[in-house]
Amino acid sequence: MRKTATIAALLACTATAPLAAKEGMFTPGQLPEIAKDLKETGLEIDPEALSDLTGFPMGAIVSLGGCSASFVSPQGLVVTNHHCARGSVQYNSTAENNYLENGFLARAFNEELPAAPGSRIYVTTEITDVTGRMRDGVDAMSATERYETLEQRMKDITAECEAEAGYRCQVASFYGGAEYTLIKRLEVRDVRLVYAPADSIGKYGGDVDNWMWPRHTGDFAFYRAYVAPDGSAADYSETNVPYTPEHHLKVSAAGLEDGDFVMAAGYPGSTQRYATLAEVENTFDWSYPTFVTLLNDWIDTIEEAAPEGSDARVKYESRLAGLNNSEKNLRGQIEGARRVGLVDRRREREEALAAWIAADKSRAGYGEAISGLQALTVESAAEARKSFWYNNATRPALLSAAQRLYRLSKEREKENALRDPGYQDRDMTFFRQGLQALDRRYEASVDKAEWLMFLSTYIKQPEENRVAVFDKALGLTPGMTTQQLSDKLDAYYAGTTLDETATRLSLMEADAATFEASNDPFVKLAVALYPYERAKEAEGEERAGRAQALRPAYMDAIMQWQRSQGITTYPDANSTLRVTYGTVLGGSPRDGMAYLPFTTLEGILEKDTGIDPFNAPEKQLKEIREKDYGKYKLDSIGSVPVNFLSDLDSTGGNSGSATLNARAELVGLLFDGTFESVNSDWDFDPRTTRTIHVDTRYMLWVMDKVDGAQGLIEEMDIVE
Amino acid sequence: MRKTATIAALLACTATAPLAAKEGMFTPGQLPEIAKDLKETGLEIDPEALSDLTGFPMGAIVSLGGCSASFVSPQGLVVTNHHCARGSVQYNSTAENNYLENGFLARAFNEELPAAPGSRIYVTTEITDVTGRMRDGVDAMSATERYETLEQRMKDITAECEAEAGYRCQVASFYGGAEYTLIKRLEVRDVRLVYAPADSIGKYGGDVDNWMWPRHTGDFAFYRAYVAPDGSAADYSETNVPYTPEHHLKVSAAGLEDGDFVMAAGYPGSTQRYATLAEVENTFDWSYPTFVTLLNDWIDTIEEAAPEGSDARVKYESRLAGLNNSEKNLRGQIEGARRVGLVDRRREREEALAAWIAADKSRAGYGEAISGLQALTVESAAEARKSFWYNNATRPALLSAAQRLYRLSKEREKENALRDPGYQDRDMTFFRQGLQALDRRYEASVDKAEWLMFLSTYIKQPEENRVAVFDKALGLTPGMTTQQLSDKLDAYYAGTTLDETATRLSLMEADAATFEASNDPFVKLAVALYPYERAKEAEGEERAGRAQALRPAYMDAIMQWQRSQGITTYPDANSTLRVTYGTVLGGSPRDGMAYLPFTTLEGILEKDTGIDPFNAPEKQLKEIREKDYGKYKLDSIGSVPVNFLSDLDSTGGNSGSATLNARAELVGLLFDGTFESVNSDWDFDPRTTRTIHVDTRYMLWVMDKVDGAQGLIEEMDIVE
Repeated sequence: MRKTATIAALLACTATAPLAAKEGMFTPGQLPEIAKDLKETGLEIDPEALSDLTGFPMGAIVSLGGCSASFVSPQGLVVTNHHCARGSVQYNSTAENNYLENGFLARAFNEELPAAPGSRIYVTTEITDVTGRMRDGVDAMSATERYETLEQRMKDITAECEAEAGYRCQVASFYGGAEYTLIKRLEVRDVRLVYAPADSIGKYGGDVDNWMWPRHTGDFAFYRAYVAPDGSAADYSETNVPYTPEHHLKVSAAGLEDGDFVMAAGYPGSTQRYATLAEVENTFDWSYPTFVTLLNDWIDTIEEAAPEGSDARVKYESRLAGLNNSEKNLRGQIEGARRVGLVDRRREREEALAAWIAADKSRAGYGEAISGLQALTVESAAEARKSFWYNNATRPALLSAAQRLYRLSKEREKENALRDPGYQDRDMTFFRQGLQALDRRYEASVDKAEWLMFLSTYIKQPEENRVAVFDKALGLTPGMTTQQLSDKLDAYYAGTTLDETATRLSLMEADAATFEASNDPFVKLAVALYPYERAKEAEGEERAGRAQALRPAYMDAIMQWQRSQGITTYPDANSTLRVTYGTVLGGSPRDGMAYLPFTTLEGILEKDTGIDPFNAPEKQLKEIREKDYGKYKLDSIGSVPVNFLSDLDSTGGNSGSATLNARAELVGLLFDGTFESVNSDWDFDPRTTRTIHVDTRYMLWVMDKVDGAQGLIEEMDIVE
Repeated sequence: MRKTATIAALLACTATAPLAAKEGMFTPGQLPEIAKDLKETGLEIDPEALSDLTGFPMGAIVSLGGCSASFVSPQGLVVTNHHCARGSVQYNSTAENNYLENGFLARAFNEELPAAPGSRIYVTTEITDVTGRMRDGVDAMSATERYETLEQRMKDITAECEAEAGYRCQVASFYGGAEYTLIKRLEVRDVRLVYAPADSIGKYGGDVDNWMWPRHTGDFAFYRAYVAPDGSAADYSETNVPYTPEHHLKVSAAGLEDGDFVMAAGYPGSTQRYATLAEVENTFDWSYPTFVTLLNDWIDTIEEAAPEGSDARVKYESRLAGLNNSEKNLRGQIEGARRVGLVDRRREREEALAAWIAADKSRAGYGEAISGLQALTVESAAEARKSFWYNNATRPALLSAAQRLYRLSKEREKENALRDPGYQDRDMTFFRQGLQALDRRYEASVDKAEWLMFLSTYIKQPEENRVAVFDKALGLTPGMTTQQLSDKLDAYYAGTTLDETATRLSLMEADAATFEASNDPFVKLAVALYPYERAKEAEGEERAGRAQALRPAYMDAIMQWQRSQGITTYPDANSTLRVTYGTVLGGSPRDGMAYLPFTTLEGILEKDTGIDPFNAPEKQLKEIREKDYGKYKLDSIGSVPVNFLSDLDSTGGNSGSATLNARAELVGLLFDGTFESVNSDWDFDPRTTRTIHVDTRYMLWVMDKVDGAQGLIEEMDIVE
């Protein structure tokens, strides 16, 4: 009989966690600065190598726009999360060939299927500091002038960069506008689906397990990048050839042990680690709780208007999933903020920063900037609370389409370089795809139910939270009954032709006069609201312009203050390439409980009910029952590891990020955070923040034992 | 920096768990038989001592009837769970003195309050084997004769034993009727409430945390036993004096570490460890799922009929809590059965038993008994499925009261010794209390809503599942609308006087003719159903009589078979005194997750929202924030342990059981099992079965630092 576990052993995982956890989503350029800690944590390759975006391994890291991915073969094979490629699986599925249900595997290049429209693989080729050109002279400008100047310069720099065909460029702002970087990316437009396991593996646990540990999700899939024979980016064509990346990752079949070094490279979307106390308070005291209540009403409304099994429900499945996801996330954030005492912690941080500023007269400028920013935050929050109800009351799909189209007609009166972002020629592909996509996501009865729900809340608001021009255009009066409202909306849906794709697409070419003469009720409403919306936008831009002066100073104070404590300040996430590092590590989500660092194949047997989302394929269950682990077993857990936890610092957008070991070999894919981690966007709590990865040993085991994808295994460089 | 936890260390808790867990609720008499294992597991006192019910420590263990408890001072001080004494706290609470909310502490004997009516402390004084007298000649009898003979002998033995005033006796059946034991208990009728912390400590976590780990519940309270000055049991009187027990437990302030030996002595209610495959299948394939569905409808019905905040809701709070509790328990059992593969495991056990029987011709008799039992199980299950709907349709409170009262009048036609159990003179105190209690738990509108719900389901049943005499008496016809049903029931509630306590109590003295002449609609229904109910009862008794012949043989087979493997067979729980032993031990409720063995004071801060049931008293939160642990700190967890887990084998009725260390000192009170354990009533799964205890260090810390109960601490023998 083995000795009973001692509490010391059990607590080791929790007690050491806070010390081991590594906060920080570092830009590759920052890594040499923290080389010592990277080495101490376990990195075996030269930290300098990680700062070379076109060298190994960073040259293998790509973005899908919203998700992260990486090259894993010299023939442009890309691995990412199943949930990042699922749209493409769905796009190719039919009743006869339901790839969501059965999985998809191309056994040869010519069996690979085009990914969903708009799918892209972005390969970063160049990064340039453009801070000087962006910020030159803006400090002296008025707020609005500053905003407009920065926006125009951003567009100009982007346009110059995109003059080279096949590239997509972006000017990214760091540290609240203190620094600007131009990122140039090859835009691979011919993306093909190579392999995705069935939903019952790739989406195992579904919404129930979403953000949860223990987890058993095979969240991986493979794309391939195709380019023209000359290597340039091109639209889909049979003559295209697989792209040859400069670098690709080796895939480790040896995998990890608890405590091993890991790092992830990917494109985290956004964090608010440097938000001020006032912003945090407004968010957690008002915005999030208010929105959670609304989200629940919204979900109920859709579920009622589009009952399960109806055709309408099919169109709204994806929105429902998104709303439920947001609802769970926000609840997790609110709960997490309470648990870690976010507001108190932020107040303490601001007090400590204020004390540091007060300690030296030369820092007085920081104090003024911070006061200004606090005042601005309060002003913006007040404005956001006022417009919250109107913003929701103008959500209907066809109204939004009309608004975007009318605005496009107005923007097109200007020359391309001067148009607002989103309305330039470079945006038109996605603009058109957005209008087309509405088809598959719109049902008048459901849209009306949503609008009615939002309007019922809106008309209960006091006058200062309502918008006169909107009330007038819609004929809203206080105390209107739901029936009266409903009758009013019926006329909108009966009178519009915007529900026809052809109408929407043709309006992309229409001039403003056409809209202004239109009798379409949604178009008329869009035209009526236009002056108000532009005025509000101008007010917002004026505030943004003020922030663009204040926030860089605030961030500079933070950076100097942290530097004085020996801390390297990393910028908030902004969808640019970042590296986070740490170790494989279980955790303690709460007192009395521990998360173990690995889950096992046997956990699938334990969870499986045979009913979606716990319906693993029979073949897989059989292999598990027979303990057919192949060479993918981790001896210390006595099974194949399915998912693992680490203390890496990640957020949305990191999905699909390559998880690398100390030698920069692929050991997994980052795909989620634990429920207790969602609040880490605001405040990294080392005790509870854990990132969830799918282990490459599980990926390879599924490919080898379940899906027969030996061809792909052979294509990759597998290292033991 | 401390070293990162290794997976081996983390897994230790899960990997060793199955080996360490100790299945078995042993009778004290069995303990010498397993002395070797008790010593090896860590018991320091002589195992023989545990079999002496009137010696130390077992002489200190008492029953409250439904809960367990123990003497902890020479002045009759009794410690039990808060949830076992809460009825008495509630009984003494008023709007001005809300002891539920504020807690209650008597600072002197004369401040102690009478416990709720019917509260008892049962002190076991003698145990006698009466198997011979019970079973003499019954094997040769017909089934019905056997049933009646056993019942009559049980009543006769009980009556002889209770001839001595102040004692309550019980003939308990073990191993399915293979053995019978007469248990004689002093019945302390003057029970007083001494101390109960506030609900916000004693019921911390409420229904949310019920059956959950991690747990932070201060589930303890103190009673005192009072007797007449001459030491005999007596009703409440000011002249009564504290009872002097033969033995009381010392209370350990030193407490436990992970892995330490623990045992619990208490009165587990019932288990089905030896249920046959057919019984298990019927329960998990039909009874439980069907009842869970019904329970949910039932809960919805009450919640709708008695909205939150209504007076009616107050009356139904306790029933709602009970139904929710059952619903959660049954769901846990169903989930647990699936997880451990209960049906397959039971099938394997029966196959192994059959193989053992087949291996020796002399065992053929066992085989016949088992076949007979299986056939009987199938027959009983079919009958239970048929009568399920009728049984629910006859649940209304006043109908039940009428049925019990009419039956009493019929039973009273017989001499006392021949009446059925429950209708003898010895039962009248509780019979009367039951009729009185209805007052506080009945509201016509809610009762009617429940009845309507049950009847709506009943009338949808095919004819073979309905009861003709019931249909006729109520005038039920297939296809009746809910409105028609509702109108019919209105007449019942309008026409009855059974809702008056005086009426119900006066009917305890009425003869059968009075009932038969009554115009009360519930009484008329009860009279109409009487012949049918008695006939069903007789059928049930005939089946029970057959089981009384078959089950002892089946259990004998199990015992012989287990003995051949070196296993000591313990009897299923039957509310008699049992001992279970094992170690303090965390666990793995599922793959990828671990329960740590202790929770800490800090976990209360973490859970606390300020809102019931997570609203710890401000004083307590302050003491925790200040880390005022006093001498109650456990160094290895760096705090005061609140609750702990063990692998003890327990079930309902064990609540309040003294948890003892290797020297038989009190280290905690058993109060719950984890959600993953509820299925252990059917099958002890060593990996997931964990019992939850409140740690004496937490009890003493609350008494010392929060509630100022130093007087009680001084009264007890505290050992360090």
